[in-house]
Amino acid sequence: MIIDSLLQTLGDLLGPGGLLTDPADTAPYCTDWRGLYHGRTPAVLRPNSTGAVAACVAACAEAGVRLVPMGGNTSMVGGAAVPEDGSELVLSLSRLARIRAIDAIDMTMTIEAGVTLKAAQDAARAAGCLLPLSISSEGSAQIGGVLATNAGGNNTVRYGNARELVLGLEAVMADGTVFEGLRRLRKDNTGYALRQLLVGSEGTLGIITAAVLQLSPLPRQVEVALCGVASPEAALALFMAFRAADPSAIQAFEYMSGTGMALVNTLIPDAGLPLSEPAPHYVLVELATARDDGTLRDLLEGVLAEALETGGVLDAVVAESGTQRLAIWKLREEHSEAQKRAGGSVKNDVSVPVSRVPELIARATSACEALIPGIRVAPFGHLGDGNIHFNLVQPEGADTAGFLARDHEIMDTVCAIVRELEGSFSAEHGVGRLKPYMMPDWRGGAELAAMRRIKQALDPKGILNHGKLLPDASAG
Amino acid sequence: MIIDSLLQTLGDLLGPGGLLTDPADTAPYCTDWRGLYHGRTPAVLRPNSTGAVAACVAACAEAGVRLVPMGGNTSMVGGAAVPEDGSELVLSLSRLARIRAIDAIDMTMTIEAGVTLKAAQDAARAAGCLLPLSISSEGSAQIGGVLATNAGGNNTVRYGNARELVLGLEAVMADGTVFEGLRRLRKDNTGYALRQLLVGSEGTLGIITAAVLQLSPLPRQVEVALCGVASPEAALALFMAFRAADPSAIQAFEYMSGTGMALVNTLIPDAGLPLSEPAPHYVLVELATARDDGTLRDLLEGVLAEALETGGVLDAVVAESGTQRLAIWKLREEHSEAQKRAGGSVKNDVSVPVSRVPELIARATSACEALIPGIRVAPFGHLGDGNIHFNLVQPEGADTAGFLARDHEIMDTVCAIVRELEGSFSAEHGVGRLKPYMMPDWRGGAELAAMRRIKQALDPKGILNHGKLLPDASAG
Repeated sequence: MIIDSLLQTLGDLLGPGGLLTDPADTAPYCTDWRGLYHGRTPAVLRPNSTGAVAACVAACAEAGVRLVPMGGNTSMVGGAAVPEDGSELVLSLSRLARIRAIDAIDMTMTIEAGVTLKAAQDAARAAGCLLPLSISSEGSAQIGGVLATNAGGNNTVRYGNARELVLGLEAVMADGTVFEGLRRLRKDNTGYALRQLLVGSEGTLGIITAAVLQLSPLPRQVEVALCGVASPEAALALFMAFRAADPSAIQAFEYMSGTGMALVNTLIPDAGLPLSEPAPHYVLVELATARDDGTLRDLLEGVLAEALETGGVLDAVVAESGTQRLAIWKLREEHSEAQKRAGGSVKNDVSVPVSRVPELIARATSACEALIPGIRVAPFGHLGDGNIHFNLVQPEGADTAGFLARDHEIMDTVCAIVRELEGSFSAEHGVGRLKPYMMPDWRGGAELAAMRRIKQALDPKGILNHGKLLPDASAG
Repeated sequence: MIIDSLLQTLGDLLGPGGLLTDPADTAPYCTDWRGLYHGRTPAVLRPNSTGAVAACVAACAEAGVRLVPMGGNTSMVGGAAVPEDGSELVLSLSRLARIRAIDAIDMTMTIEAGVTLKAAQDAARAAGCLLPLSISSEGSAQIGGVLATNAGGNNTVRYGNARELVLGLEAVMADGTVFEGLRRLRKDNTGYALRQLLVGSEGTLGIITAAVLQLSPLPRQVEVALCGVASPEAALALFMAFRAADPSAIQAFEYMSGTGMALVNTLIPDAGLPLSEPAPHYVLVELATARDDGTLRDLLEGVLAEALETGGVLDAVVAESGTQRLAIWKLREEHSEAQKRAGGSVKNDVSVPVSRVPELIARATSACEALIPGIRVAPFGHLGDGNIHFNLVQPEGADTAGFLARDHEIMDTVCAIVRELEGSFSAEHGVGRLKPYMMPDWRGGAELAAMRRIKQALDPKGILNHGKLLPDASAG
């Protein structure tokens, strides 16, 4: 058997603890975070150095055996899902977990793929810097996966996506050679932007083993407010008012629906609404600055006062402490959990130009309510960057399985409107295994053709994360 | 003749004014901006729409005739140089010169390749927005070339390079198909980042025909100061002091040597030094903010006062008007022209991590002075992003041809030190025709191999900008 002989080679190579073959040990790697996919694998490879990753990939390429690269396994779209037929090996990056260097003058961090985002944030903070990337799964998500999927999150409005933070990259290519691109330069125009191609390629073109990230100065003033607003238009107007006052201070600008907030208040313990009464829609705004002139609170209150006077904001509360800031953020962070507890829910991670968010919310709400009377429309997300998680919760008391059986119908309804508004069907979660079927329709023609040619050029044997991102060769 | 028949086809396709074949008309396209290369071409194609560009490329691909895509032809490295053998056609993007749309809410501009950077800046400003990209050649450089070369310039320290401003892209691929990626989204994780691959590919993978650029709010306060400083270390310390005070206010942070400044003061009319006496080194700092709280001047003066007190800054002048701001910037902008007037000069567009700029300047200065006694070492550039134009001017009264004959020796001397400091041999000018020979040594192994595979995959016939960026197949 090719696999048996390969596993023998890999076992010798990886040493004690480097190769898991017992089904009890490999099982945790074979189900994705959302529980959408359940696969099996002959082995999980756990190399502890870039050289060992390269040796694993070279051996698998030689044997023609496919690999699923895996970080924290927190993909929302089965980006690291293991196939059911047991034909592929898992390559876990978890043991590449060193922070190689932090430079507080250059504000750069050289870090291995297996470090969790949270650990990376903490290390940056300890060096007096900010790693300005924040996503819900940061406690488990690892840097390699964060970059391979170009993670977005709450701070994109200010700092961009993961892509914008990557100065340098080290990656093992599909033939087992190592791309040694760990440069710490703000300017370097010497050939094709391989690091940019690898970021967001979901492990299908190379396996990221380390990166140089651009850090930012730590904020010295932070303010968080929760606002009840009358409409999505009022939420957008408030965003523009903050931008007019000081665009460089907006750290996060999040929208939440009244429906979603009510679910959080009802279903999550200790998540009370700090406003005097519920509003139809909400905004969470976080301002931050590295200045220490003590003016940020005035700026926040000035904008809110004017918006309260003109009626754009119905009510607002400003956090008076770190504890209150966390309590307000909790209302936003618990949206997914509350929806889970409310029964079946369908997720749409979509984006549109920021100016079109109100139209998206209005039209998609109407369309979904027409499709399934009683459906609970609970969109929330990053208004400041145009990325809305347009989630739908089953009608109260309805049959969950029956509701979930209509998931594609619901997604199609939302996506048709997103498309008319020149948006994207996947803003920050990526394509993974869940959405390659949408690629020919949305990204077909010259674009998909170029992607296929690039995959063929860099991974001619199709070793890396097969079945993710790109649809079958027959499609599109 | 294949060419004759192709030109007949193209002439019919492009209509009046679309095809230049008279040598008097094509000559201006056949010399690069620096005068390093002198070629000839049977014809210059001047399509006026994306469809016409696509038809030209398809016809040339069919005939196996190579194309040199050309914008403003301002490359510093022969990026649009036309070969001497007359075998290639020039494809000028100049007639794709429409600004298709500006959205002041989303702060996006949809713009065609042939618009000059200056015209794009002006259009953004008229819409109340800032296009935050500024380079010396902006009056002639066109958006297509600016993006194809990932231009940098003065504002990278705050806004990043051209790459960071590109939300969407439209490009004609080597087979004449059109990549329709003019999206206006801050988040869109749907497949490989083709736009990022095309940006910086110097016209070798596709021809950019239009782009969506991210604009920024217009500054409402701007302050410019010129400082005399004792050393490059003092210049770096001043940068860090400004960053500590307000990192988001630093619009540009430029270094100039005393030698370079003296050349400007001597050789450029009306370029007087506004300080009481010359200094060994200089810094130009520009601060800007979209806030209108009137505090920016205080911030500038506060940092300068402290630096004057500690001796880090020897003397400083703050511009009191727009006219004075321009006069200070002129001292920086005229560095290239002054060096030209001083005789032969050798240019090195290099970058290192910001923290290592002082070491670069010290070591490369010593090495060049040891190599050629009397050589005038006149580095200047973007200290805030680590990109120094490490330029060398011939000794006074020396033989220019004899000096320039040693250009590679000088470049090698500088680059050897850049390499030890983990820098790049081309920070913002790119590789073009001048520097492909350096690629195997600096970017060899897996990196260059991947670049070659990508070129082969996307342009298998080698139609687009042959001989640029990548070295001959035999090298590396």
